Amino acid sequence: MRTLLTVVDEGTFDAAAAVLHVTPSAVSQRVKALEQRTGRVLLMRTKPVRPTESGEAVVRFARQLARLERDTRAELGMSGTEEPTRLSIAVNADSLATWFLPALSRVPAELPLCYELRREDQDHTAALLREGLVMAAVTSSPDAVPGCSVRRLGHMRYVPVASPAFAARWFGAGSGTPLREAVADAPVVVFDRRDDLQDAFVRKVVRGRRGASAVRHLVPTSESFGEAVAAGMGWGMVPEVQAAPLLRARRLVTLAPDRRIDVPLYWQQWKLDFPALAAVAEAVMAEAAEALDDGRAG
Amino acid sequence: MRTLLTVVDEGTFDAAAAVLHVTPSAVSQRVKALEQRTGRVLLMRTKPVRPTESGEAVVRFARQLARLERDTRAELGMSGTEEPTRLSIAVNADSLATWFLPALSRVPAELPLCYELRREDQDHTAALLREGLVMAAVTSSPDAVPGCSVRRLGHMRYVPVASPAFAARWFGAGSGTPLREAVADAPVVVFDRRDDLQDAFVRKVVRGRRGASAVRHLVPTSESFGEAVAAGMGWGMVPEVQAAPLLRARRLVTLAPDRRIDVPLYWQQWKLDFPALAAVAEAVMAEAAEALDDGRAG
Repeated sequence: MRTLLTVVDEGTFDAAAAVLHVTPSAVSQRVKALEQRTGRVLLMRTKPVRPTESGEAVVRFARQLARLERDTRAELGMSGTEEPTRLSIAVNADSLATWFLPALSRVPAELPLCYELRREDQDHTAALLREGLVMAAVTSSPDAVPGCSVRRLGHMRYVPVASPAFAARWFGAGSGTPLREAVADAPVVVFDRRDDLQDAFVRKVVRGRRGASAVRHLVPTSESFGEAVAAGMGWGMVPEVQAAPLLRARRLVTLAPDRRIDVPLYWQQWKLDFPALAAVAEAVMAEAAEALDDGRAG
Repeated sequence: MRTLLTVVDEGTFDAAAAVLHVTPSAVSQRVKALEQRTGRVLLMRTKPVRPTESGEAVVRFARQLARLERDTRAELGMSGTEEPTRLSIAVNADSLATWFLPALSRVPAELPLCYELRREDQDHTAALLREGLVMAAVTSSPDAVPGCSVRRLGHMRYVPVASPAFAARWFGAGSGTPLREAVADAPVVVFDRRDDLQDAFVRKVVRGRRGASAVRHLVPTSESFGEAVAAGMGWGMVPEVQAAPLLRARRLVTLAPDRRIDVPLYWQQWKLDFPALAAVAEAVMAEAAEALDDGRAG
Protein backbone atom coordinates (compact mmCIF):
# COMPACT_ATOMS: atom_id res chain seq x y z
CA MET A 1 0.00 0.00 0.00
CA ARG A 2 2.88 2.34 0.86
CA THR A 3 4.47 1.42 -2.46
CA LEU A 4 1.25 2.29 -4.30
CA LEU A 5 1.14 5.69 -2.61
CA THR A 6 4.77 6.38 -3.44
CA VAL A 7 4.24 5.50 -7.10
CA VAL A 8 1.22 7.82 -7.30
CA ASP A 9 3.08 10.63 -5.52
CA GLU A 10 6.27 10.32 -7.54
CA GLY A 11 4.57 9.64 -10.87
CA THR A 12 6.74 6.77 -12.12
CA PHE A 13 7.88 3.32 -10.94
CA ASP A 14 11.50 4.41 -11.32
CA ALA A 15 11.09 7.50 -9.14
CA ALA A 16 9.19 5.48 -6.53
CA ALA A 17 11.95 2.87 -6.52
CA ALA A 18 14.55 5.58 -5.85
CA VAL A 19 12.53 6.94 -2.92
CA LEU A 20 11.89 3.48 -1.44
CA HIS A 21 15.46 2.29 -2.04
CA VAL A 22 14.35 -0.80 -3.96
CA THR A 23 14.52 -1.79 -7.64
CA PRO A 24 11.85 -0.65 -10.10
CA SER A 25 10.94 -4.29 -10.68
CA ALA A 26 10.30 -4.74 -6.94
CA VAL A 27 7.96 -1.74 -7.09
CA SER A 28 6.20 -3.22 -10.09
CA GLN A 29 5.82 -6.61 -8.35
CA ARG A 30 4.33 -5.03 -5.21
CA VAL A 31 1.78 -3.08 -7.22
CA LYS A 32 0.90 -6.22 -9.19
CA ALA A 33 0.50 -8.20 -5.98
CA LEU A 34 -1.88 -5.58 -4.65
CA GLU A 35 -3.79 -5.67 -7.93
CA GLN A 36 -4.07 -9.47 -7.73
CA ARG A 37 -5.33 -9.27 -4.14
CA THR A 38 -7.95 -6.64 -4.96
CA GLY A 39 -8.76 -8.29 -8.28
CA ARG A 40 -8.62 -4.94 -10.03
CA VAL A 41 -6.21 -2.88 -12.10
CA LEU A 42 -5.23 -0.02 -9.79
CA LEU A 43 -2.83 2.02 -11.90
CA MET A 44 -2.85 3.11 -15.51
CA ARG A 45 0.76 2.73 -16.69
CA THR A 46 0.85 6.21 -18.24
CA LYS A 47 3.49 8.87 -17.65
CA PRO A 48 2.88 9.94 -14.97
CA VAL A 49 0.94 6.89 -13.77
CA ARG A 50 -2.66 7.55 -12.81
CA PRO A 51 -4.89 5.54 -10.51
CA THR A 52 -7.89 3.85 -12.12
CA GLU A 53 -11.28 4.40 -10.52
CA SER A 54 -10.66 1.39 -8.30
CA GLY A 55 -7.14 2.68 -7.71
CA GLU A 56 -8.50 6.00 -6.52
CA ALA A 57 -10.56 4.31 -3.81
CA VAL A 58 -7.53 2.28 -2.68
CA VAL A 59 -5.30 5.37 -2.68
CA ARG A 60 -7.81 7.30 -0.56
CA PHE A 61 -8.04 4.33 1.80
CA ALA A 62 -4.25 3.98 1.99
CA ARG A 63 -3.76 7.65 2.80
CA GLN A 64 -6.31 7.68 5.55
CA LEU A 65 -4.78 4.49 6.94
CA ALA A 66 -1.31 6.08 6.98
CA ARG A 67 -2.82 9.08 8.73
CA LEU A 68 -4.50 6.94 11.41
CA GLU A 69 -1.30 4.99 11.97
CA ARG A 70 0.65 8.18 12.46
CA ASP A 71 -1.88 9.65 14.89
CA THR A 72 -1.89 6.45 16.93
CA ARG A 73 1.91 6.36 17.02
CA ALA A 74 1.97 9.99 18.14
CA GLU A 75 -0.56 9.25 20.89
CA LEU A 76 1.53 6.32 22.09
CA GLY A 77 4.64 8.49 22.04
CA MET A 78 6.34 6.11 19.62
CA SER A 79 9.40 7.14 17.66
CA GLY A 80 9.34 8.21 14.05
CA THR A 81 6.63 10.75 14.69
CA GLU A 82 8.74 13.88 14.88
CA GLU A 83 8.38 14.62 11.23
CA PRO A 84 5.75 17.25 10.53
CA THR A 85 2.27 16.43 9.31
CA ARG A 86 1.88 16.80 5.55
CA LEU A 87 -1.31 18.51 4.51
CA SER A 88 -2.04 18.27 0.79
CA ILE A 89 -4.63 20.77 -0.31
CA ALA A 90 -5.90 21.62 -3.80
CA VAL A 91 -6.67 25.31 -4.24
CA ASN A 92 -8.06 27.14 -7.24
CA ALA A 93 -5.68 29.71 -8.74
CA ASP A 94 -7.63 32.84 -7.82
CA SER A 95 -8.02 31.75 -4.19
CA LEU A 96 -4.31 30.98 -3.99
CA ALA A 97 -3.53 34.43 -5.40
CA THR A 98 -5.80 36.24 -2.97
CA TRP A 99 -7.15 34.94 0.35
CA PHE A 100 -5.72 31.46 0.81
CA LEU A 101 -2.19 32.21 2.08
CA PRO A 102 -3.55 34.74 4.62
CA ALA A 103 -5.86 31.92 5.77
CA LEU A 104 -2.86 29.65 6.38
CA SER A 105 -1.14 32.35 8.40
CA ARG A 106 -4.05 32.06 10.87
CA VAL A 107 -3.06 28.48 11.65
CA PRO A 108 -1.24 28.36 15.02
CA ALA A 109 2.48 28.49 14.24
CA GLU A 110 3.39 25.86 16.84
CA LEU A 111 1.67 23.09 14.85
CA PRO A 112 4.33 21.10 12.99
CA LEU A 113 2.84 21.23 9.50
CA CYS A 114 4.01 21.01 5.92
CA TYR A 115 1.65 22.31 3.29
CA GLU A 116 1.54 20.68 -0.11
CA LEU A 117 -0.55 23.06 -2.13
CA ARG A 118 -1.79 22.03 -5.57
CA ARG A 119 -3.05 24.67 -7.93
CA GLU A 120 -5.97 23.56 -10.04
CA ASP A 121 -8.97 24.87 -11.86
CA GLN A 122 -11.77 25.33 -9.32
CA ASP A 123 -13.88 22.76 -11.18
CA HIS A 124 -10.99 20.30 -11.07
CA THR A 125 -9.86 20.49 -7.44
CA ALA A 126 -12.62 18.05 -6.40
CA ALA A 127 -11.18 15.52 -8.88
CA LEU A 128 -7.84 15.60 -7.04
CA LEU A 129 -9.72 14.87 -3.83
CA ARG A 130 -11.54 11.98 -5.49
CA GLU A 131 -8.25 10.61 -6.83
CA GLY A 132 -6.82 10.62 -3.33
CA LEU A 133 -4.09 13.11 -4.25
CA VAL A 134 -5.15 15.69 -1.67
CA MET A 135 -6.90 15.69 1.72
CA ALA A 136 -8.89 18.86 1.17
CA ALA A 137 -9.86 21.18 -1.63
CA VAL A 138 -11.23 24.63 -2.31
CA THR A 139 -13.72 23.84 -5.04
CA SER A 140 -16.74 25.20 -6.87
CA SER A 141 -18.48 21.84 -6.48
CA PRO A 142 -21.06 21.51 -3.66
CA ASP A 143 -21.34 17.75 -4.31
CA ALA A 144 -19.43 15.82 -1.68
CA VAL A 145 -16.69 13.50 -2.91
CA PRO A 146 -17.19 10.01 -1.36
CA GLY A 147 -15.83 9.99 2.18
CA CYS A 148 -15.62 13.77 2.31
CA SER A 149 -17.53 16.58 3.99
CA VAL A 150 -18.48 19.91 2.36
CA ARG A 151 -18.77 23.37 3.84
CA ARG A 152 -19.69 26.56 2.04
CA LEU A 153 -16.97 29.21 2.06
CA GLY A 154 -18.82 32.08 0.37
CA HIS A 155 -18.32 33.28 -3.15
CA MET A 156 -15.66 35.01 -5.15
CA ARG A 157 -16.92 38.01 -7.05
CA TYR A 158 -15.64 38.69 -10.57
CA VAL A 159 -15.99 42.05 -12.28
CA PRO A 160 -15.66 42.80 -16.02
CA VAL A 161 -12.69 45.12 -16.57
CA ALA A 162 -10.35 46.43 -19.26
CA SER A 163 -7.52 48.93 -19.56
CA PRO A 164 -8.69 52.54 -20.09
CA ALA A 165 -7.21 52.60 -23.61
CA PHE A 166 -8.86 49.31 -24.53
CA ALA A 167 -12.22 50.44 -23.13
CA ALA A 168 -11.98 53.74 -25.00
CA ARG A 169 -11.25 51.95 -28.25
CA TRP A 170 -13.90 49.24 -27.98
CA PHE A 171 -16.57 50.65 -25.70
CA GLY A 172 -16.30 54.41 -26.20
CA ALA A 173 -14.36 56.47 -23.66
CA GLY A 174 -14.71 53.84 -20.97
CA SER A 175 -18.20 54.97 -20.10
CA GLY A 176 -19.50 51.44 -20.37
CA THR A 177 -22.72 52.53 -22.03
CA PRO A 178 -22.55 51.04 -25.55
CA LEU A 179 -21.30 47.84 -23.99
CA ARG A 180 -23.94 45.36 -25.13
CA GLU A 181 -22.89 44.80 -28.68
CA ALA A 182 -19.20 45.63 -28.43
CA VAL A 183 -18.39 43.21 -25.61
CA ALA A 184 -19.27 40.19 -27.73
CA ASP A 185 -16.78 41.25 -30.41
CA ALA A 186 -13.92 42.74 -28.43
CA PRO A 187 -10.79 40.62 -27.86
CA VAL A 188 -10.97 38.84 -24.53
CA VAL A 189 -8.52 37.34 -22.06
CA VAL A 190 -9.48 33.93 -20.64
CA PHE A 191 -7.66 31.84 -18.06
CA ASP A 192 -7.57 28.58 -20.04
CA ARG A 193 -9.77 26.56 -22.36
CA ARG A 194 -12.07 25.60 -19.52
CA ASP A 195 -12.59 29.17 -18.28
CA ASP A 196 -16.24 29.97 -19.00
CA LEU A 197 -16.58 33.20 -16.99
CA GLN A 198 -16.17 35.65 -19.86
CA ASP A 199 -18.63 33.71 -22.01
CA ALA A 200 -21.09 33.62 -19.10
CA PHE A 201 -20.82 37.40 -18.77
CA VAL A 202 -21.53 37.93 -22.49
CA ARG A 203 -24.52 35.59 -22.35
CA LYS A 204 -25.78 37.62 -19.40
CA VAL A 205 -25.57 41.05 -21.04
CA VAL A 206 -26.13 40.24 -24.74
CA ARG A 207 -29.27 38.26 -25.44
CA GLY A 208 -28.79 35.46 -27.95
CA ARG A 209 -24.98 35.45 -27.94
CA ARG A 210 -23.31 32.17 -27.09
CA GLY A 211 -20.18 33.69 -25.69
CA ALA A 212 -17.33 36.14 -25.97
CA SER A 213 -15.27 36.79 -29.10
CA ALA A 214 -13.22 34.03 -30.72
CA VAL A 215 -10.31 36.46 -30.49
CA ARG A 216 -9.21 35.22 -27.10
CA HIS A 217 -5.88 35.11 -25.36
CA LEU A 218 -5.23 32.29 -22.88
CA VAL A 219 -3.24 33.52 -19.88
CA PRO A 220 -3.21 30.76 -17.29
CA THR A 221 -2.00 32.35 -14.06
CA SER A 222 -4.04 34.52 -11.77
CA GLU A 223 -1.64 37.44 -11.54
CA SER A 224 -0.63 37.41 -15.22
CA PHE A 225 -4.31 37.38 -16.15
CA GLY A 226 -4.82 40.74 -14.43
CA GLU A 227 -1.58 42.04 -15.96
CA ALA A 228 -2.64 40.97 -19.45
CA VAL A 229 -5.95 42.81 -19.05
CA ALA A 230 -4.19 45.89 -17.69
CA ALA A 231 -1.76 45.72 -20.63
CA GLY A 232 -4.72 45.97 -23.01
CA MET A 233 -4.64 42.48 -24.53
CA GLY A 234 -8.39 42.21 -23.99
CA TRP A 235 -11.16 42.59 -21.44
CA GLY A 236 -11.66 39.95 -18.78
CA MET A 237 -13.41 38.95 -15.57
CA VAL A 238 -11.03 39.67 -12.69
CA PRO A 239 -11.65 38.91 -9.00
CA GLU A 240 -12.95 42.11 -7.42
CA VAL A 241 -10.31 41.96 -4.70
CA GLN A 242 -7.54 41.84 -7.35
CA ALA A 243 -9.15 44.46 -9.55
CA ALA A 244 -9.75 47.00 -6.76
CA PRO A 245 -6.20 48.41 -6.49
CA LEU A 246 -5.85 48.49 -10.29
CA LEU A 247 -9.20 50.29 -10.60
CA ARG A 248 -8.07 52.85 -8.02
CA ALA A 249 -4.80 53.38 -9.89
CA ARG A 250 -6.81 53.81 -13.12
CA ARG A 251 -4.89 50.97 -14.74
CA LEU A 252 -8.27 49.27 -15.17
CA VAL A 253 -11.80 50.54 -15.69
CA THR A 254 -14.96 48.56 -15.12
CA LEU A 255 -17.17 47.77 -18.09
CA ALA A 256 -20.41 47.53 -16.16
CA PRO A 257 -20.36 48.62 -12.53
CA ASP A 258 -23.61 46.81 -11.71
CA ARG A 259 -22.77 43.53 -13.46
CA ARG A 260 -20.62 40.86 -11.94
CA ILE A 261 -20.45 37.11 -11.61
CA ASP A 262 -20.31 35.37 -8.27
CA VAL A 263 -18.64 31.95 -8.13
CA PRO A 264 -19.52 29.95 -5.00
CA LEU A 265 -16.63 28.21 -3.30
CA TYR A 266 -16.72 25.20 -1.00
CA TRP A 267 -14.28 23.50 1.34
CA GLN A 268 -14.27 19.75 0.91
CA GLN A 269 -12.14 17.54 3.12
CA TRP A 270 -11.78 13.97 4.34
CA LYS A 271 -14.38 13.05 6.94
CA LEU A 272 -11.55 11.38 8.80
CA ASP A 273 -10.60 14.42 10.80
CA PHE A 274 -7.32 14.95 12.63
CA PRO A 275 -6.06 17.92 14.63
CA ALA A 276 -3.91 19.52 11.92
CA LEU A 277 -6.59 19.29 9.26
CA ALA A 278 -9.21 20.60 11.69
CA ALA A 279 -6.98 23.58 12.55
CA VAL A 280 -6.49 24.44 8.88
CA ALA A 281 -10.21 24.04 8.14
CA GLU A 282 -11.01 26.42 10.98
CA ALA A 283 -8.48 28.99 9.72
CA VAL A 284 -9.84 28.68 6.17
CA MET A 285 -13.45 29.17 7.30
CA ALA A 286 -12.48 32.19 9.41
CA GLU A 287 -10.53 33.89 6.62
CA ALA A 288 -13.22 33.10 4.04
CA ALA A 289 -15.83 34.69 6.30
CA GLU A 290 -13.87 37.94 6.10
CA ALA A 291 -12.34 37.82 2.63
CA LEU A 292 -15.11 36.30 0.51
CA ASP A 293 -18.44 37.89 -0.21
CA ASP A 294 -21.21 36.21 1.72
CA GLY A 295 -18.65 34.10 3.56
CA ARG A 296 -19.92 32.23 6.59
CA ALA A 297 -17.90 30.83 9.43
CA GLY A 298 -19.44 27.40 9.96
CA MET B 1 -5.92 14.67 -39.07
CA ARG B 2 -8.12 17.61 -38.05
CA THR B 3 -10.12 15.19 -35.91
CA LEU B 4 -6.96 13.97 -34.21
CA LEU B 5 -5.92 17.55 -33.40
CA THR B 6 -9.35 18.37 -32.03
CA VAL B 7 -9.33 15.30 -29.77
CA VAL B 8 -5.89 16.23 -28.43
CA ASP B 9 -6.92 19.86 -27.89
CA GLU B 10 -10.25 19.07 -26.25
CA GLY B 11 -9.02 16.12 -24.24
CA THR B 12 -11.89 13.67 -24.88
CA PHE B 13 -13.66 12.09 -27.84
CA ASP B 14 -16.98 13.49 -26.57
CA ALA B 15 -15.70 17.06 -26.37
CA ALA B 16 -14.10 16.76 -29.81
CA ALA B 17 -17.38 15.43 -31.22
CA ALA B 18 -19.23 18.46 -29.83
CA VAL B 19 -16.72 20.85 -31.43
CA LEU B 20 -16.78 19.05 -34.79
CA HIS B 21 -20.57 18.59 -34.76
CA VAL B 22 -20.34 14.82 -35.30
CA THR B 23 -21.02 11.84 -33.05
CA PRO B 24 -18.36 10.55 -30.64
CA SER B 25 -18.35 7.27 -32.54
CA ALA B 26 -17.54 9.12 -35.78
CA VAL B 27 -14.60 10.73 -33.99
CA SER B 28 -13.46 7.36 -32.73
CA GLN B 29 -13.72 5.83 -36.22
CA ARG B 30 -11.68 8.62 -37.80
CA VAL B 31 -8.91 8.25 -35.25
CA LYS B 32 -8.92 4.47 -35.73
CA ALA B 33 -8.73 4.91 -39.50
CA LEU B 34 -5.71 7.17 -39.09
CA GLU B 35 -4.14 4.62 -36.75
CA GLN B 36 -4.69 1.86 -39.31
CA ARG B 37 -3.16 3.94 -42.07
CA THR B 38 -0.09 4.80 -40.02
CA GLY B 39 0.07 1.31 -38.54
CA ARG B 40 0.54 2.77 -35.08
CA VAL B 41 -1.49 3.55 -31.98
CA LEU B 42 -1.61 7.35 -31.92
CA LEU B 43 -3.65 8.10 -28.81
CA MET B 44 -3.66 6.63 -25.32
CA ARG B 45 -7.34 6.45 -24.33
CA THR B 46 -6.76 8.09 -20.96
CA LYS B 47 -8.69 11.04 -19.53
CA PRO B 48 -7.64 13.39 -21.00
CA VAL B 49 -6.35 11.42 -24.00
CA ARG B 50 -2.63 11.70 -24.63
CA PRO B 51 -0.74 11.14 -27.86
CA THR B 52 1.66 8.19 -27.90
CA GLU B 53 5.21 8.82 -29.08
CA SER B 54 4.07 8.12 -32.65
CA GLY B 55 1.01 10.24 -32.02
CA GLU B 56 3.19 13.16 -30.98
CA ALA B 57 4.99 13.11 -34.31
CA VAL B 58 1.69 13.00 -36.21
CA VAL B 59 0.22 15.82 -34.09
CA ARG B 60 3.27 17.99 -34.74
CA PHE B 61 3.00 17.21 -38.44
CA ALA B 62 -0.74 17.94 -38.50
CA ARG B 63 -0.31 21.30 -36.79
CA GLN B 64 2.41 22.45 -39.12
CA LEU B 65 0.29 21.29 -42.04
CA ALA B 66 -2.68 23.32 -40.79
CA ARG B 67 -0.37 26.29 -40.40
CA LEU B 68 0.96 25.97 -43.96
CA GLU B 69 -2.55 25.63 -45.32
CA ARG B 70 -3.67 28.78 -43.57
CA ASP B 71 -0.65 30.79 -44.76
CA THR B 72 -1.23 29.65 -48.32
CA ARG B 73 -4.93 30.53 -48.13
CA ALA B 74 -4.03 33.95 -46.74
CA GLU B 75 -1.52 34.51 -49.56
CA LEU B 76 -4.14 33.55 -52.12
CA GLY B 77 -6.65 35.87 -50.45
CA MET B 78 -9.04 32.98 -49.95
CA SER B 79 -11.92 33.23 -47.52
CA GLY B 80 -11.88 31.80 -44.02
CA THR B 81 -8.62 33.47 -43.24
CA GLU B 82 -9.88 36.44 -41.28
CA GLU B 83 -9.67 34.70 -37.98
CA PRO B 84 -6.55 35.62 -36.04
CA THR B 85 -3.49 33.41 -35.90
CA ARG B 86 -3.34 31.26 -32.77
CA LEU B 87 0.07 31.11 -31.19
CA SER B 88 0.39 28.44 -28.53
CA ILE B 89 3.42 28.97 -26.32
CA ALA B 90 4.56 27.12 -23.20
CA VAL B 91 6.15 29.40 -20.63
CA ASN B 92 7.67 28.55 -17.27
CA ALA B 93 5.87 30.10 -14.31
CA ASP B 94 8.61 32.51 -13.24
CA SER B 95 9.02 33.89 -16.76
CA LEU B 96 5.27 34.35 -17.08
CA ALA B 97 5.23 36.20 -13.76
CA THR B 98 8.08 38.52 -14.72
CA TRP B 99 9.36 39.30 -18.22
CA PHE B 100 7.16 37.35 -20.64
CA LEU B 101 4.04 39.57 -20.83
CA PRO B 102 6.19 42.69 -21.35
CA ALA B 103 7.83 40.77 -24.20
CA LEU B 104 4.44 40.18 -25.83
CA SER B 105 3.61 43.86 -25.56
CA ARG B 106 6.57 44.49 -27.91
CA VAL B 107 4.80 42.56 -30.68
CA PRO B 108 3.31 45.01 -33.20
CA ALA B 109 -0.34 45.52 -32.18
CA GLU B 110 -1.62 45.41 -35.76
CA LEU B 111 -0.80 41.69 -36.10
CA PRO B 112 -4.04 39.69 -35.68
CA LEU B 113 -2.85 37.24 -33.01
CA CYS B 114 -4.34 35.14 -30.26
CA TYR B 115 -1.96 33.88 -27.61
CA GLU B 116 -2.56 30.53 -25.99
CA LEU B 117 -0.13 30.53 -23.13
CA ARG B 118 0.53 27.32 -21.21
CA ARG B 119 2.18 27.52 -17.84
CA GLU B 120 4.55 24.65 -17.13
CA ASP B 121 7.60 23.74 -15.17
CA GLN B 122 10.63 25.01 -17.10
CA ASP B 123 11.89 21.43 -17.44
CA HIS B 124 8.51 20.36 -18.82
CA THR B 125 7.79 23.05 -21.41
CA ALA B 126 9.94 21.22 -23.97
CA ALA B 127 7.72 18.15 -23.51
CA LEU B 128 4.68 20.17 -24.60
CA LEU B 129 6.60 21.17 -27.70
CA ARG B 130 7.51 17.53 -28.36
CA GLU B 131 3.89 16.47 -27.89
CA GLY B 132 2.82 19.02 -30.48
CA LEU B 133 0.69 20.96 -27.99
CA VAL B 134 2.57 24.23 -28.48
CA MET B 135 4.56 25.91 -31.27
CA ALA B 136 7.19 27.46 -29.05
CA ALA B 137 8.45 27.19 -25.50
CA VAL B 138 10.55 29.00 -22.95
CA THR B 139 12.53 26.11 -21.54
CA SER B 140 15.62 25.23 -19.55
CA SER B 141 16.52 22.57 -22.09
CA PRO B 142 19.17 23.45 -24.71
CA ASP B 143 18.47 20.18 -26.57
CA ALA B 144 16.39 20.87 -29.65
CA VAL B 145 13.08 19.03 -29.89
CA PRO B 146 12.86 17.28 -33.32
CA GLY B 147 11.83 19.80 -35.95
CA CYS B 148 12.57 22.77 -33.69
CA SER B 149 15.24 25.42 -33.41
CA VAL B 150 16.84 26.65 -30.16
CA ARG B 151 18.07 30.08 -29.18
CA ARG B 152 19.57 31.09 -25.86
CA LEU B 153 17.61 33.74 -23.97
CA GLY B 154 19.94 34.34 -21.04
CA HIS B 155 19.45 33.16 -17.49
CA MET B 156 17.11 33.84 -14.64
CA ARG B 157 18.89 34.57 -11.40
CA TYR B 158 17.53 33.16 -8.14
CA VAL B 159 18.53 34.52 -4.73
CA PRO B 160 18.06 32.82 -1.33
CA VAL B 161 15.72 34.92 0.80
CA ALA B 162 13.54 34.79 3.91
CA SER B 163 11.40 37.14 5.96
CA PRO B 164 13.35 39.19 8.52
CA ALA B 165 11.62 37.41 11.44
CA PHE B 166 12.33 33.98 9.93
CA ALA B 167 15.97 34.88 9.29
CA ALA B 168 16.38 36.21 12.81
CA ARG B 169 14.93 33.02 14.28
CA TRP B 170 16.87 30.53 12.15
CA PHE B 171 20.00 32.34 11.03
CA GLY B 172 20.62 34.86 13.81
CA ALA B 173 19.48 38.46 13.26
CA GLY B 174 19.43 38.09 9.52
CA SER B 175 23.17 38.59 9.26
CA GLY B 176 23.52 35.53 7.11
CA THR B 177 26.76 34.49 8.78
CA PRO B 178 25.90 31.25 10.61
CA LEU B 179 24.04 30.17 7.51
CA ARG B 180 25.86 26.97 6.63
CA GLU B 181 24.39 24.60 9.14
CA ALA B 182 21.06 26.28 9.76
CA VAL B 183 19.96 26.46 6.14
CA ALA B 184 19.88 22.69 5.82
CA ASP B 185 17.50 22.39 8.79
CA ALA B 186 15.26 25.44 8.40
CA PRO B 187 11.78 24.99 6.91
CA VAL B 188 11.82 25.70 3.20
CA VAL B 189 9.31 26.75 0.55
CA VAL B 190 9.53 24.87 -2.75
CA PHE B 191 7.49 25.36 -5.89
CA ASP B 192 6.43 21.74 -6.38
CA ARG B 193 7.88 18.25 -6.04
CA ARG B 194 10.11 18.76 -9.05
CA ASP B 195 11.59 22.05 -7.83
CA ASP B 196 15.24 21.30 -7.08
CA LEU B 197 16.53 24.87 -6.66
CA GLN B 198 16.46 24.98 -2.87
CA ASP B 199 18.19 21.60 -2.62
CA ALA B 200 20.78 22.75 -5.15
CA PHE B 201 21.50 25.82 -3.01
CA VAL B 202 21.97 23.72 0.13
CA ARG B 203 24.30 21.33 -1.70
CA LYS B 204 26.29 24.37 -2.81
CA VAL B 205 26.76 25.95 0.62
CA VAL B 206 26.78 22.91 2.94
CA ARG B 207 29.25 20.23 2.01
CA GLY B 208 27.88 16.71 2.24
CA ARG B 209 24.20 17.63 2.53
CA ARG B 210 21.88 16.13 -0.06
CA GLY B 211 19.35 18.92 0.09
CA ALA B 212 17.18 21.25 2.09
CA SER B 213 15.07 20.29 5.10
CA ALA B 214 12.27 17.74 4.80
CA VAL B 215 10.08 20.38 6.40
CA ARG B 216 9.02 21.84 3.09
CA HIS B 217 5.92 23.66 1.96
CA LEU B 218 4.83 23.28 -1.66
CA VAL B 219 3.48 26.56 -3.06
CA PRO B 220 3.00 26.14 -6.79
CA THR B 221 2.51 29.63 -8.20
CA SER B 222 5.21 32.18 -8.79
CA GLU B 223 3.62 35.07 -6.92
CA SER B 224 2.30 32.98 -4.01
CA PHE B 225 5.77 31.49 -3.64
CA GLY B 226 7.23 34.92 -2.91
CA GLU B 227 4.30 35.74 -0.63
CA ALA B 228 4.74 32.49 1.32
CA VAL B 229 8.43 33.30 1.87
CA ALA B 230 7.59 36.87 2.90
CA ALA B 231 4.95 35.48 5.29
CA GLY B 232 7.65 33.48 7.04
CA MET B 233 6.60 29.95 6.03
CA GLY B 234 10.20 29.17 5.11
CA TRP B 235 13.18 30.38 3.13
CA GLY B 236 13.27 29.94 -0.62
CA MET B 237 15.00 30.78 -3.89
CA VAL B 238 13.12 33.71 -5.48
CA PRO B 239 13.87 35.29 -8.87
CA GLU B 240 16.04 38.34 -8.19
CA VAL B 241 13.68 40.57 -10.16
CA GLN B 242 10.75 39.52 -7.95
CA ALA B 243 12.77 39.68 -4.74
CA ALA B 244 14.21 43.16 -5.36
CA PRO B 245 11.14 45.25 -4.38
CA LEU B 246 10.49 43.01 -1.35
CA LEU B 247 14.12 43.33 -0.29
CA ARG B 248 13.91 47.12 -0.58
CA ALA B 249 10.71 47.14 1.48
CA ARG B 250 12.48 44.95 4.09
CA ARG B 251 9.78 42.29 3.73
CA LEU B 252 12.60 39.94 2.70
CA VAL B 253 16.27 39.70 3.60
CA THR B 254 18.88 37.82 1.62
CA LEU B 255 20.55 34.82 3.24
CA ALA B 256 23.80 35.05 1.31
CA PRO B 257 24.34 38.13 -0.82
CA ASP B 258 27.10 36.51 -2.85
CA ARG B 259 25.33 33.20 -3.47
CA ARG B 260 22.74 32.72 -6.16
CA ILE B 261 21.69 30.18 -8.74
CA ASP B 262 21.42 31.01 -12.42
CA VAL B 263 18.98 28.98 -14.50
CA PRO B 264 19.62 29.24 -18.26
CA LEU B 265 16.56 29.72 -20.43
CA TYR B 266 16.12 28.90 -24.10
CA TRP B 267 13.55 29.70 -26.76
CA GLN B 268 12.59 26.65 -28.77
CA GLN B 269 10.18 26.90 -31.66
CA TRP B 270 9.08 25.11 -34.79
CA LYS B 271 11.58 25.40 -37.61
CA LEU B 272 8.57 25.99 -39.84
CA ASP B 273 8.57 29.73 -39.45
CA PHE B 274 5.70 32.08 -40.26
CA PRO B 275 5.39 35.83 -39.83
CA ALA B 276 3.45 35.86 -36.55
CA LEU B 277 5.77 33.38 -34.86
CA ALA B 278 8.82 35.23 -36.16
CA ALA B 279 7.47 38.53 -34.78
CA VAL B 280 6.89 36.99 -31.35
CA ALA B 281 10.32 35.33 -31.34
CA GLU B 282 11.92 38.67 -32.13
CA ALA B 283 10.00 40.41 -29.33
CA VAL B 284 10.92 37.63 -26.89
CA MET B 285 14.62 37.82 -27.79
CA ALA B 286 14.61 41.62 -27.44
CA GLU B 287 12.89 41.60 -24.05
CA ALA B 288 15.08 38.75 -22.77
CA ALA B 289 18.19 40.71 -23.76
CA GLU B 290 17.07 43.47 -21.40
CA ALA B 291 15.26 41.59 -18.65
CA LEU B 292 17.39 38.46 -18.19
CA ASP B 293 20.92 38.37 -16.92
CA ASP B 294 23.35 37.64 -19.70
CA GLY B 295 20.53 37.86 -22.23
CA ARG B 296 21.58 37.99 -25.85
CA ALA B 297 19.54 39.16 -28.75
CA GLY B 298 20.30 36.59 -31.41
